[in-house]
Amino acid sequence: MIIVMKADVGAEAPEVRQLVELAESYPGVTTELHEIAGSTRTLTELYLLGSTGVIPTEPFQEFSCVEKVVRITEKFRSIGRHGGDLEAVGFEYNGVEISQDTLHLFPGLCAVDAAANVDTMFEVLAEHGICTARAGAYKPRTSPYDFQGRGADCLPMVFELAGKHGIKIISMEVTHESHLDEIQTALIESGNATGVMVQIGTRNAQNFELLKAVGQQTELPVLFKRGMGITLEESLNACEYVASGGNRRIVFCLRGMKTNLGDPHRNFVDFAHVPAVKRLTRLPVFVDPSHSVGSRATAPDDVLDIYHVTAQGIIVGANGVLVDFHPHPENALCDGPQALHMDELAEFIGDTQIARDAYERRLQNRTGRRGA
Amino acid sequence: MIIVMKADVGAEAPEVRQLVELAESYPGVTTELHEIAGSTRTLTELYLLGSTGVIPTEPFQEFSCVEKVVRITEKFRSIGRHGGDLEAVGFEYNGVEISQDTLHLFPGLCAVDAAANVDTMFEVLAEHGICTARAGAYKPRTSPYDFQGRGADCLPMVFELAGKHGIKIISMEVTHESHLDEIQTALIESGNATGVMVQIGTRNAQNFELLKAVGQQTELPVLFKRGMGITLEESLNACEYVASGGNRRIVFCLRGMKTNLGDPHRNFVDFAHVPAVKRLTRLPVFVDPSHSVGSRATAPDDVLDIYHVTAQGIIVGANGVLVDFHPHPENALCDGPQALHMDELAEFIGDTQIARDAYERRLQNRTGRRGA
Amino acid sequence: MIIVMKADVGAEAPEVRQLVELAESYPGVTTELHEIAGSTRTLTELYLLGSTGVIPTEPFQEFSCVEKVVRITEKFRSIGRHGGDLEAVGFEYNGVEISQDTLHLFPGLCAVDAAANVDTMFEVLAEHGICTARAGAYKPRTSPYDFQGRGADCLPMVFELAGKHGIKIISMEVTHESHLDEIQTALIESGNATGVMVQIGTRNAQNFELLKAVGQQTELPVLFKRGMGITLEESLNACEYVASGGNRRIVFCLRGMKTNLGDPHRNFVDFAHVPAVKRLTRLPVFVDPSHSVGSRATAPDDVLDIYHVTAQGIIVGANGVLVDFHPHPENALCDGPQALHMDELAEFIGDTQIARDAYERRLQNRTGRRGA
Amino acid sequence: MIIVMKADVGAEAPEVRQLVELAESYPGVTTELHEIAGSTRTLTELYLLGSTGVIPTEPFQEFSCVEKVVRITEKFRSIGRHGGDLEAVGFEYNGVEISQDTLHLFPGLCAVDAAANVDTMFEVLAEHGICTARAGAYKPRTSPYDFQGRGADCLPMVFELAGKHGIKIISMEVTHESHLDEIQTALIESGNATGVMVQIGTRNAQNFELLKAVGQQTELPVLFKRGMGITLEESLNACEYVASGGNRRIVFCLRGMKTNLGDPHRNFVDFAHVPAVKRLTRLPVFVDPSHSVGSRATAPDDVLDIYHVTAQGIIVGANGVLVDFHPHPENALCDGPQALHMDELAEFIGDTQIARDAYERRLQNRTGRRGA
Repeated sequence: MIIVMKADVGAEAPEVRQLVELAESYPGVTTELHEIAGSTRTLTELYLLGSTGVIPTEPFQEFSCVEKVVRITEKFRSIGRHGGDLEAVGFEYNGVEISQDTLHLFPGLCAVDAAANVDTMFEVLAEHGICTARAGAYKPRTSPYDFQGRGADCLPMVFELAGKHGIKIISMEVTHESHLDEIQTALIESGNATGVMVQIGTRNAQNFELLKAVGQQTELPVLFKRGMGITLEESLNACEYVASGGNRRIVFCLRGMKTNLGDPHRNFVDFAHVPAVKRLTRLPVFVDPSHSVGSRATAPDDVLDIYHVTAQGIIVGANGVLVDFHPHPENALCDGPQALHMDELAEFIGDTQIARDAYERRLQNRTGRRGA
Repeated sequence: MIIVMKADVGAEAPEVRQLVELAESYPGVTTELHEIAGSTRTLTELYLLGSTGVIPTEPFQEFSCVEKVVRITEKFRSIGRHGGDLEAVGFEYNGVEISQDTLHLFPGLCAVDAAANVDTMFEVLAEHGICTARAGAYKPRTSPYDFQGRGADCLPMVFELAGKHGIKIISMEVTHESHLDEIQTALIESGNATGVMVQIGTRNAQNFELLKAVGQQTELPVLFKRGMGITLEESLNACEYVASGGNRRIVFCLRGMKTNLGDPHRNFVDFAHVPAVKRLTRLPVFVDPSHSVGSRATAPDDVLDIYHVTAQGIIVGANGVLVDFHPHPENALCDGPQALHMDELAEFIGDTQIARDAYERRLQNRTGRRGA
Repeated sequence: MIIVMKADVGAEAPEVRQLVELAESYPGVTTELHEIAGSTRTLTELYLLGSTGVIPTEPFQEFSCVEKVVRITEKFRSIGRHGGDLEAVGFEYNGVEISQDTLHLFPGLCAVDAAANVDTMFEVLAEHGICTARAGAYKPRTSPYDFQGRGADCLPMVFELAGKHGIKIISMEVTHESHLDEIQTALIESGNATGVMVQIGTRNAQNFELLKAVGQQTELPVLFKRGMGITLEESLNACEYVASGGNRRIVFCLRGMKTNLGDPHRNFVDFAHVPAVKRLTRLPVFVDPSHSVGSRATAPDDVLDIYHVTAQGIIVGANGVLVDFHPHPENALCDGPQALHMDELAEFIGDTQIARDAYERRLQNRTGRRGA
Repeated sequence: MIIVMKADVGAEAPEVRQLVELAESYPGVTTELHEIAGSTRTLTELYLLGSTGVIPTEPFQEFSCVEKVVRITEKFRSIGRHGGDLEAVGFEYNGVEISQDTLHLFPGLCAVDAAANVDTMFEVLAEHGICTARAGAYKPRTSPYDFQGRGADCLPMVFELAGKHGIKIISMEVTHESHLDEIQTALIESGNATGVMVQIGTRNAQNFELLKAVGQQTELPVLFKRGMGITLEESLNACEYVASGGNRRIVFCLRGMKTNLGDPHRNFVDFAHVPAVKRLTRLPVFVDPSHSVGSRATAPDDVLDIYHVTAQGIIVGANGVLVDFHPHPENALCDGPQALHMDELAEFIGDTQIARDAYERRLQNRTGRRGA
């Protein structure tokens, strides 16, 4: 059950305190206070957690500070579609608009290594008109004895080079809430020319404390990678932890699922879920072909599987593509075998444009199922 | 180990008999004789099965009837690519060419019911220039208490109506070798205007006796649906049962995999495997969007998921599409909820043409990875 | 919907013919006639398949030959528990009783090879007081180039040696309905001293034509191995094909499931389902530790995993164990790495007795949840 | 690569600083310093992460502070068996010994609620001679709108009542590193009569930052629950994060895997992996039957599936059992349907004793595969 306060009521208001006491007087009920920053005002909400099914709503509605009392019966309260009547969750960040209607490529280094490689990467992206990139500083690795990323030390270098080449957004995984401060500090010190979209990786898809942190402690956009081995519904519920924390700048990213049936790909490519996620939520949906395919396997038509599955994502309306490139894949510290070469970037961009064009032509081909 | 005979040697030749005896004199070895009908001649092969690793090849090579002795070390001997030097397995049947380069739609009834529906179906297909269709007479159902298909009784009606409307190939599942005779007899009686591609359903993907039968007892093309719950490699090995039986007119069809991760689709859509199957084998690759998606779920862009995943298959080079249509889906005896309506056919065809066009443009966009 | 005839009504009765015509007059309905042999009488049933939900029962009940009309609303009509009020499906065959209360070991050869090995196997089993064995003549193999079993040729030898050593039941896989005749003929020619329980392997778990055949064409008991990659419910529905065909001597066998989570075992051991299958059905439940574990992996307590999982099955009430032994595992033509050695048989038997004893003590330890 | 220092060398030693510089002078190499507290001394280790395969060992071995240089080629360096020559990782904590040879039951509340329930729980456990329990204060829940546990507030009450009834160890999940401090503070304030084993839940199985924290920031024992949807090997690698952080008091707990094949159980019970984990590692192995089965489903032999799978774990050597009990399951705030009733405790204990007795008899039944 959620009690939504009126526009002028903050979490510190005495009446809110009384609401908390009343709520916790019911057995088996605990509470959480949430403040959600909107563009024009901040919304205060009181969550009643636990056995709330038998609690009456009337005693709460009588408080003058209360706008409404909502029972949580629908799935995905904050991010869901609920029949389509809610505003979209797309957003603009650092001059870039990201929504269920846009498409952006985020090529880049899976793991940041030498500054020269970062410089080359951003320079080539800029030459091709791309201002969004991926770059990994904190790398969660299966074994503690593997390379764990360069961490906070590389951030000034990365942000300086990004600013130099006009990169507007870098998608960067975080694995601990302290990384948020490190990133925000480094962004400020670099003059905020570039921005960061923080990634939650598949291994932390149900690390709810981290999800609460990115929901409550930052206004940076969040790219949430679908959790491996959990259902799509569970992943969307995990996104609700971010949204219910107050941060609604969320992107959902498909990246393949671990099963015994996805071979010969590294993971079972799940890009058929692009339209499904758009139907269930109002979130922009990205795809990560590199971690889905996991190699430079090439079909007899002389096209890499990574290109093919990217096209599959885009022709059904994907809103973004994270893709690994590297100036010297053979020297990459992480996932080199799946990295594309810099001289393939133009072809890759052209390939995605053909697929996006096809998507738009498909929309024009519709005979109008719903409207006139 | 396989002993390939010279061009003029049949299975009855006395020397072949001696080869069998020699082979079976080795402990743990059994044999099988295969005759494979080609366009110009019939090839005789003797398979040595079991512990053949330690058997020398020389004693067999000395026979004058022997062309060569082959150790089976490569995967997918008959259908595999083996580095690309083998002729393609595409084929022409009843005037229709099917290969890794072509694209054909096979819309139709999941299960044949009333003749009026079959007539309408074929008539509308013909109006739209389509001469390939699906139609189910024998239906394997999870429960014995469900409708099991109309069986052999409906074949004359189906083939007569197909002939009337110029349908060249009907894709039709068989679940028992006796269905082959029933189909072939009915085809002859109907004047052979139409033809049949026999389908092996996912439940029979490792019914090796049935696979041997369609490999040995018929020259009708075979559409093999990938087995649920087994790896892609196991499914391709199962195709080898058909090919090693002598029938090389094989199509491989993706139709989604059962897992707990494919929700909200009926099955986990696996069309990212289209390029993978083309790389591993020389078989044409079809997709079945209807059984993969399993419903008329529609994305917020007003496009059905069935259309979306079809486009995903085609933009990476799928060679065929099996798709359920029905004049009255609400009355369908099987899988009605996933059937498209006849008045959606034009839009569906247009949608597939956009995706196919995009695939062809993508091929032109290549920068020439391999050759000039 | 199922129409059950009175005791004296056979399938040929004129009234039954009229019932068929009436049933098929409803659109979307087909029929099947079943005769089920019981110990004292034969039961005739008419199945109405398809869209039977809207058909009234009254017109059928008015026929004088009709005992009752049953709508199929419960799962697993023939083999299910339905609240516990139905008679158990245990059976006696060739002097051996098999039910949800008994325990029998079926050690033996995964694949029949040399007669000497078969002779040794049965001799040693007899020395240890075991009269039930497994022996594979027809082997479905993933690749057509692998050893496919010795087939019908070895049956006289196997049955003669079984009779010589007093083996009462041999569990033997069939992969085609013709194998039923071959086995029945060979049994008769061997003097019927031994008997056969026909196995349906996991690859044929949804080969409904074969299931119908063993349900209708034989009175030999049937051991059904759970299908890989399908749910338990789907496997139990497949058993219904056997039971609804008339043969109620069915054993359900767990053998591990293919997933990416069962490593380092060959399959994900599923013996926790022993009590679940007993709750859902009245079938005896066997386990196959050899194909579940797939190797001679040994724990630090010096006990093989095959022993451990066998104990896991028995301590929760498993009714039988199929287990691979071989006099010379290194020479076995199939699955040698998982075969136990003959000199381990005594230890294995002792191990299973400890687990069975523990199961019986556990039953005595109950405090009487349900009754006095 | 790991550089192990001599006994008297701390992380602050100047030579160690020089080693770090040398290591980081190689391209693609980062370092981590670890201090591992043993019973008699502290061990200092320098980890070289990244592309260490081409680095020579000699330059490092020449330092006088270096004991040895180890290349990480074996799996599970800290917890693995490596052929059996390493000391066991069992441990004693608060007077309780936990190893691969012992067995302890940890019954308790899935989620702490009213003090009266906690008091009753510990009182009844004490009456039955059990001094180890589970109790959940921090609950990670799929949806942010579900009850999230009583958190730190309930710790003083829980520890006071545990001390009152002589409970020696409480197994308690943590989801954030700050919980470690909260627990340790509350333990000290409660007089340290009781102790805590911190649980890492399945959702945090690859939350490497949390794993590093429990490895480095606490000496409390750690119970690691296997991750859902990842392989056993990946879960064991995750345990290495704890062990390589310095904390070697680790218990591995099986709790069932999410798949589509485990129905009708909540998860696919994986207790066949008890001997496998013992073979791969030196860790004690626990099982959690409550979360595996997820309900009070009862077999026709009048035994709950939860009892059955517990027996399956113990008869193969499980070292501990986490099991949900509740004085009033119908009022439980979390997972009530799977909780056992307090008056079932005696029967449950008896059942586990029968299974443990059977395990010990099985060990005596061995014929001595390895030794005399």
